[in-house]
Amino acid sequence: MTDCQGDVEGASTPMELYEKLSEQGVKVRSLKSAKADKTKVDTAVQLLLKLKMDYKQMTGHDYKAGCPPSENDAAPNNGPAADVAGEDDTVDPWTVSTTNAKGVDYDKLIVVRFGSSKIDQELVDRIEKVCGQKPHRFLRRGVFFSHRDMHQVLDAYEKHKSFYLYTGRGPSSEAMHVGHLIPFIFTKWLQDVFDIPLVIQLTDDEKYLWKDLTVEECHRFAIENAKDIIACGFDINKTFIFSDLDYMGSSPEFYRNVVKIQKHVTFNQVKGIFGFTDSDCIGKISFPAIQAAPSFSNSFPHVFGSRKDIQCLIPCAIDQDPYFRMTRDVAPRIGYPKPALLHSTFFPALQGAQTKMSASDANSSIFLTDTPKQIKNKINKHAFSGGKDTVEEHRKYGGNADVDVSFMYLTFFLEDDEQLEKIRQDYTSGALLTGELKKILIETLQPMIAQHQERRKQVTDDLVKQFMTPRPLNFNL
Amino acid sequence: MTDCQGDVEGASTPMELYEKLSEQGVKVRSLKSAKADKTKVDTAVQLLLKLKMDYKQMTGHDYKAGCPPSENDAAPNNGPAADVAGEDDTVDPWTVSTTNAKGVDYDKLIVVRFGSSKIDQELVDRIEKVCGQKPHRFLRRGVFFSHRDMHQVLDAYEKHKSFYLYTGRGPSSEAMHVGHLIPFIFTKWLQDVFDIPLVIQLTDDEKYLWKDLTVEECHRFAIENAKDIIACGFDINKTFIFSDLDYMGSSPEFYRNVVKIQKHVTFNQVKGIFGFTDSDCIGKISFPAIQAAPSFSNSFPHVFGSRKDIQCLIPCAIDQDPYFRMTRDVAPRIGYPKPALLHSTFFPALQGAQTKMSASDANSSIFLTDTPKQIKNKINKHAFSGGKDTVEEHRKYGGNADVDVSFMYLTFFLEDDEQLEKIRQDYTSGALLTGELKKILIETLQPMIAQHQERRKQVTDDLVKQFMTPRPLNFNL
Repeated sequence: MTDCQGDVEGASTPMELYEKLSEQGVKVRSLKSAKADKTKVDTAVQLLLKLKMDYKQMTGHDYKAGCPPSENDAAPNNGPAADVAGEDDTVDPWTVSTTNAKGVDYDKLIVVRFGSSKIDQELVDRIEKVCGQKPHRFLRRGVFFSHRDMHQVLDAYEKHKSFYLYTGRGPSSEAMHVGHLIPFIFTKWLQDVFDIPLVIQLTDDEKYLWKDLTVEECHRFAIENAKDIIACGFDINKTFIFSDLDYMGSSPEFYRNVVKIQKHVTFNQVKGIFGFTDSDCIGKISFPAIQAAPSFSNSFPHVFGSRKDIQCLIPCAIDQDPYFRMTRDVAPRIGYPKPALLHSTFFPALQGAQTKMSASDANSSIFLTDTPKQIKNKINKHAFSGGKDTVEEHRKYGGNADVDVSFMYLTFFLEDDEQLEKIRQDYTSGALLTGELKKILIETLQPMIAQHQERRKQVTDDLVKQFMTPRPLNFNL
Repeated sequence: MTDCQGDVEGASTPMELYEKLSEQGVKVRSLKSAKADKTKVDTAVQLLLKLKMDYKQMTGHDYKAGCPPSENDAAPNNGPAADVAGEDDTVDPWTVSTTNAKGVDYDKLIVVRFGSSKIDQELVDRIEKVCGQKPHRFLRRGVFFSHRDMHQVLDAYEKHKSFYLYTGRGPSSEAMHVGHLIPFIFTKWLQDVFDIPLVIQLTDDEKYLWKDLTVEECHRFAIENAKDIIACGFDINKTFIFSDLDYMGSSPEFYRNVVKIQKHVTFNQVKGIFGFTDSDCIGKISFPAIQAAPSFSNSFPHVFGSRKDIQCLIPCAIDQDPYFRMTRDVAPRIGYPKPALLHSTFFPALQGAQTKMSASDANSSIFLTDTPKQIKNKINKHAFSGGKDTVEEHRKYGGNADVDVSFMYLTFFLEDDEQLEKIRQDYTSGALLTGELKKILIETLQPMIAQHQERRKQVTDDLVKQFMTPRPLNFNL
């Protein structure tokens, strides 16, 4: 997928970009002919490739040395993403990257790009008041950092007008890593404290359309992932999990909503939002409607009957927001309420906060299938450290917790706020060494993963089938 | 819908078309200010509108007097249709028009545009031999005039490898006219003589996407149209009728085929085939996959189990061919056999062969709900005549059966070949007057429509439900 953020680093016209590209081409050739240092050449080549991708995205065709762009090569990205060209971060449903070691600049992302609202202390306090429970650590620590219409959801809830939760996952492989659990851990908490129904979409059709996989493989991954999701402890009486490949063909009401959405979104719009091009298959182009449809309660008649007015709240990672901006745009035009959202930050790769974890790189992540030994080795070997090079220097200058991946992971998984704060202070002062910090993380993750594996073992095929059978759920709306 | 045939009457550049348009605008204004004859003004205005549509199609934006097109206004149609720009006929799933009173030039259509094969006498004879029945009058008279792979279907059938039939209808209103019956009358004959199963798709989702109708209206039209289709006499043990809005949400196997097709067709391709633009909704863009899916036998597991190798034969009007050219292109890439096709000509409007009948103009057609009196009045009043202006002239010079709509209708509905030929000769010689010819047509259609209405009355809601329930069918493959 091309990204949708028009990330062209300051070049605002095809001609400017063409000139930049030509310059970079010359630079690469001169570095190569001078037999320059491999890293230098690699960096220059990477920038060249990036510029070429940007060029193709902007003009719709490949860069050709000696062939400057014509007047026809207008930037095709005229959707909501176009006005943020030049930012350092790239965030869309298929690409998350940043050049900043602390990770994506979320405040900027919220305000400049997405137009969502920050989850501030006031909102966290209000959630605590309304649900009567201590806010989840993801709220206390800004892992869920942005929202849309959460106050409205709480206003209604206070007046005894309830809502339902919708989250999901794209099952691109059997293997899930700890980062994939973030929305599910948080969604389970929301389900528990608000006592509300939940639908979980497994977009196996999406993965078939985007990846070099068969329909059967994607469907199998959906079932395998469902087991890990069920192992998070969802209430079977309040949770419906579905594979698109199954549910689309089992619910005329769901398909009707898909068609309604598809009628109200043009190719121009999805081009602007998702960066689709004319070479993309028609399945990708129409898919966003399928991710949008669960936002409307009458997509689940076995749960909500024909009611179309029940508010939906979607906890998801911020990269999924484009789908739901589109959904919120369409909702009033087809007579449905806009879904509310809670956005999480990304879970960093072991190698650092510049990228999201990847299920395809075994060493970038702690997988839910890893043994205690693998967890230990991966963290010791691959977790990017904010510590100093020698013990002496570390003791003297202290470590940088802000870029330290082990510390970041602890903010996700260590429940005790005071302990976490003490670790931060000790690491920053130099009292705590990198090896000691890693040991705390290892001892946090090993039992957590082991317990997950234990719970997953208990998930029988029959239980999966129960969770995935369209049926009434227990709740009071 | 814009049409896909680049019907720009000789203008090959936006500038040429712009100049033509400007001229025509001047002409219309001068005719109007001269208070010219209404027919003359109307004709000039119609050409102006047509040129405007062509201009929009070629440049992507509206014609504006005084604003000549810029260099950016290249023709967006670069698909298979582009090479036939300049032809007089326009044929695609949403537009059928010609400037020739005899109707569309079908031989040209076959050879130049569609690359299909003519149904020649040899093929008609072979069908007779294989099925052991006299060929249907639609075959004898060239109503079904073009095919793809029909010899292959017959080769296999002779070796006891059977096939199934697939046809359909877009339910855009309750009212069907006699022209809509053509594919069904012929399909019923094929079902009877080959003794094979049949699936009939009602594309209510398509009509929702294209028309200003609600989902509920389109679905209701599908059910009403199913009654007229059932009244054609299909064998309930061998026929499955389905509404897309229902069946897509009832068959995971059907949806899987839709997604497979959608993965293998790009926006560029549907743009070329159907003339879609960036302003079209994503539902239209992905719809062709839904019309393609019934061409593959495993879309109907209740009928064919998991078999994906059963050959499909699609009898349809020629304007539906673009869908199936696309389907045949995709089929081998997803491991399925290409569907074979039998194409019919269009059924002319009462006013003449220049256009297809329209369900939205009550006087353009004989509707299946018309009373004997309405049939008589419509034919006497509106059926375009190839006769001479006075009885004397007619007796002297004879009539022109080739452009006479009453005679054309008789070629569709009068079974007796000898009688038809005698009518032609008498009309051409002048022995038969226009009023007498119309009387023969009236007396042919009145009992035919009355019998249809009688059969339709027998179609209960329960019978519709039976036809539309996914279930096994009786046949030997």
